[in-house]
Amino acid sequence: MRVFRTIKEQQNYSLNEKCQNTRIALVPTMGFLHEGHLSLIDKAKEHADKVIASIFVNPTQFGEGEDYEDYPRDEKKDLKLLKEKNVDCVFIPELNEMYPEGFKTFCEVGKLSKEYCGRSRPTHFRGVVTVVLKLFNIVQPDVAVFGGKDYQQYIIIKTMAKDLNLPIEIIPSPIIREKDGLAVSSRNFYLKREERKEATIIYESLIMAREMVEKGKKEAGLLKKKMIDLIKAKKHTRIDYIEFVNPQTLEKVEKVERPTKVLIAVWIGKARLIDNMEIRS
Amino acid sequence: MRVFRTIKEQQNYSLNEKCQNTRIALVPTMGFLHEGHLSLIDKAKEHADKVIASIFVNPTQFGEGEDYEDYPRDEKKDLKLLKEKNVDCVFIPELNEMYPEGFKTFCEVGKLSKEYCGRSRPTHFRGVVTVVLKLFNIVQPDVAVFGGKDYQQYIIIKTMAKDLNLPIEIIPSPIIREKDGLAVSSRNFYLKREERKEATIIYESLIMAREMVEKGKKEAGLLKKKMIDLIKAKKHTRIDYIEFVNPQTLEKVEKVERPTKVLIAVWIGKARLIDNMEIRS
Repeated sequence: MRVFRTIKEQQNYSLNEKCQNTRIALVPTMGFLHEGHLSLIDKAKEHADKVIASIFVNPTQFGEGEDYEDYPRDEKKDLKLLKEKNVDCVFIPELNEMYPEGFKTFCEVGKLSKEYCGRSRPTHFRGVVTVVLKLFNIVQPDVAVFGGKDYQQYIIIKTMAKDLNLPIEIIPSPIIREKDGLAVSSRNFYLKREERKEATIIYESLIMAREMVEKGKKEAGLLKKKMIDLIKAKKHTRIDYIEFVNPQTLEKVEKVERPTKVLIAVWIGKARLIDNMEIRS
Repeated sequence: MRVFRTIKEQQNYSLNEKCQNTRIALVPTMGFLHEGHLSLIDKAKEHADKVIASIFVNPTQFGEGEDYEDYPRDEKKDLKLLKEKNVDCVFIPELNEMYPEGFKTFCEVGKLSKEYCGRSRPTHFRGVVTVVLKLFNIVQPDVAVFGGKDYQQYIIIKTMAKDLNLPIEIIPSPIIREKDGLAVSSRNFYLKREERKEATIIYESLIMAREMVEKGKKEAGLLKKKMIDLIKAKKHTRIDYIEFVNPQTLEKVEKVERPTKVLIAVWIGKARLIDNMEIRS
C-alpha cells in the first residue's frame, strides 16, 4: 500500500495511472475508520481497478465552536485497517499541504447548502464541497464513494459534480448500523454509556415513521410530531431537525405519496448524530 | 477543425486525447474574435500539441443591467478565423448545455473577487471562475491561456487553479493594442466615432504614469490624481477605478518602489473598458 503525504506525489501517481487507463476510485474520509468506511472501500472495489482512500480532518467544514480540535484521530490504526483491506493507496496530507497560507477559493452548491444540516452548520457544506473538489483534482478518480448516512452531503456532491461537469461518478453506499440500529459514526465515540443506550431512539423513530406510513399515515406533519414525541421522551436528546424530503431534490414534501427520505439530526450529549431512511407508502 | 456543441462530445474527445498523452491547451473566449484572441491561440500553440478554443458568452459573469444581451456575436466569422489559425477543435455550447435547469454550483476566490472590477461588478468573477472551472473539466487542458488585458481575471483564475489543485498551467498573454494604443477588446465595438478617438486616453494615462515614475515620482496618490485629471478632460469618459497594486497579490501599494501594476477601468459612452500596465522605478 502506497502512502502519500504530499499533493504532488499523489497527483503524479494518479495522472500516471490514468495514462495507463487505470480506473481509479476515491474514498474520502476524515479517518478514525469504522465499519462504515470499510464498506465504502468494498463498494469502491466493485467500481474500479485501484482504490485510493484519503484521510484528512478538514477544518473548513467545521464551524466555530464545533469539534474540529476534538474530532477523534488514530492514524496508525487507520493505516492498519486500510492495509488489511488491500487499499492501493492512501492520501494523508497535513493541514498546510491542503490549505497553505493565502488559500481563498471556495465552492458552494446554492441554497441546498443552507438547509437541513446547513441550517445549524452554515459553512459546513461549503467546506465539504471545496475539500472534495480539491481531492478530486488531486486524486483524479473516475468514481468516488460516499456514505449514505450523510445523505445531504451525497446529494450536494453529486450536484456539484454534475454542475461542474466533472467526469466522475458519485456513488452512495448503504448506511452501516450497529446491532441495535444506531448508524455507525466516528462521533458515536463521544457518547457516554447512558447516551449510547438512548441513541438508538434515532433509528427507532425512523422505523416508527416507516411503519406508520405502511399503515396509511401519510401526513409528514403528523409523522414528524410522533417522531419528536418519541425522541423527546429520552433524557439526553435534543432534536436539531427532522424533515421529509424528495430523495433527489431534497425539497420538502407534505405527504408521503412517492418514495420519501426522512432526514434527521439529533444532539445526544455532546454528539450531533445524523441518520436517514427512505420510506414509501 | 472539429466543432463540438455538446459537453459529452468535447469531454470524450479530450479524455481520449489525454489517454494518448496529448498535451492540450485551452483558449476560452466569448467569441467576436479579434487580434487579441488570435494572439492567445499563438501563445497556446507554443505550449501544447493540440489547441482547443471555446466560444461561449457566459451569462453568469454579466450583472443585472449589463450588456449580456447586446454583447457582440459573430459565430460564422469566429469559426472562419479559428480555422485559418489551424485550431484543432472549437467547443461552442448552447446556453442550456452549460447551465441546464437546476444549476446551482458556484466557485469564488475570496475577497479578490470583490475588489477593483469586482466592486462595480460584484458577481462578475464568481461567474468567470465558475465557467472557467466548468470549461477546464470539460476540455481537460494541461495549459490555459488568458489575455493580459483582463489582469485581475488572470490572477483570480491562477489563484483558483492553485487553491483547487488543478493540474493546469495558467498562462497570461501580452495585451494587444491598436496602432494608437487602445487595448483591443470586443467592447471597443460599442464606441461611437468620437468616443473611439477619446478612448486612447486610457493608454495615454498609463504611459504618463510610467514616465512620471521613471522620472522619480513614486507616490501612487499623486500619480493617480494626474491620471484622473488627464482622463476627466475628455468629454465622454467616466472613471470606474484606477489602482496601483502588487502584480502578484493585487494588494494596493502606496509607493511605486517595486514593479507595480496600474489597473484601470473607464466608461466611455456605453463601453466599460479596462487596461493595465506594469511600471517600475
